Amino acid sequence: MRLSEGVEWGLHCAVLLAVMPSDAALSTTRLAEFHGLPVAYLAKHLQAMSRAGILDAGTGPRGGYRLARPPADVSVLDVVEAVDGDDPAFRCMEIRRRGPAAVPAREYRTMCGIHRVMVGADEAWRAELDRTSVADLAAGVARDASPKGIEKFGQWLQEVTR
Amino acid sequence: MRLSEGVEWGLHCAVLLAVMPSDAALSTTRLAEFHGLPVAYLAKHLQAMSRAGILDAGTGPRGGYRLARPPADVSVLDVVEAVDGDDPAFRCMEIRRRGPAAVPAREYRTMCGIHRVMVGADEAWRAELDRTSVADLAAGVARDASPKGIEKFGQWLQEVTR
Repeated sequence: MRLSEGVEWGLHCAVLLAVMPSDAALSTTRLAEFHGLPVAYLAKHLQAMSRAGILDAGTGPRGGYRLARPPADVSVLDVVEAVDGDDPAFRCMEIRRRGPAAVPAREYRTMCGIHRVMVGADEAWRAELDRTSVADLAAGVARDASPKGIEKFGQWLQEVTR
Repeated sequence: MRLSEGVEWGLHCAVLLAVMPSDAALSTTRLAEFHGLPVAYLAKHLQAMSRAGILDAGTGPRGGYRLARPPADVSVLDVVEAVDGDDPAFRCMEIRRRGPAAVPAREYRTMCGIHRVMVGADEAWRAELDRTSVADLAAGVARDASPKGIEKFGQWLQEVTR
């Protein structure tokens, strides 16, 4: 069971956009450059986040991506589901309905207990991801960053918003 | 993100073994037959569960699989990790250490906040799976089964334990 690498990329891009000046947008190329990522692959994930209503893809000379909502209104779960889909990790194949003890489908009156446990675990996982917003992540980055990191970020910011 | 189908197979096999008479064992062929599964693929998962100390693989004419521990001591998580491994769903590639604002590794004093949220969600998922045992699942099957299903199971049990 593995999340796609695009989840990490999408979350870092959302955090970067959350700490940009409010009128600034970043192109796919800039977002890729900042994180050392392949532009074409990143573009696919940013487009998925745009379709999900997390990013706004501006056009024209001042175009580029911005967050489409305040960062406090974008949860980690929103980004995970935009990039990786919202299919549950467990897919019940109803194997209890096969073999020598099988009975007609209508006689299984309750959801398979194994499926039920898996649904509960899936909900716990999503609830945990939903508790943290991109604004929370951005505040954490600001708190944890080293002075040198903040200085280098400031230099890069000046260059890209010139 | 998807669990392997072997997780469902392994859990159903564990539940079946939990409701067998205590001296009875079931061969891979019987376990596959009961669930309508391909023998060779199922064998691989049963061997993994045996290596993980969940199943005992007996040998000789009375051989076959039994639970290696009381079913109350085998959690859903135990089976999931035996079959699918215990790697977390999120793998942090530390992309914050790349690009124009990167600083030497020693200056990142805390775990990346994105990684931290993912670890928390992973723990919530595993905790939920750890709360239910194979004994709980077996009790649920007994409670939910239809009279016809119980009758057919009884017939099959007579045949395989003859």
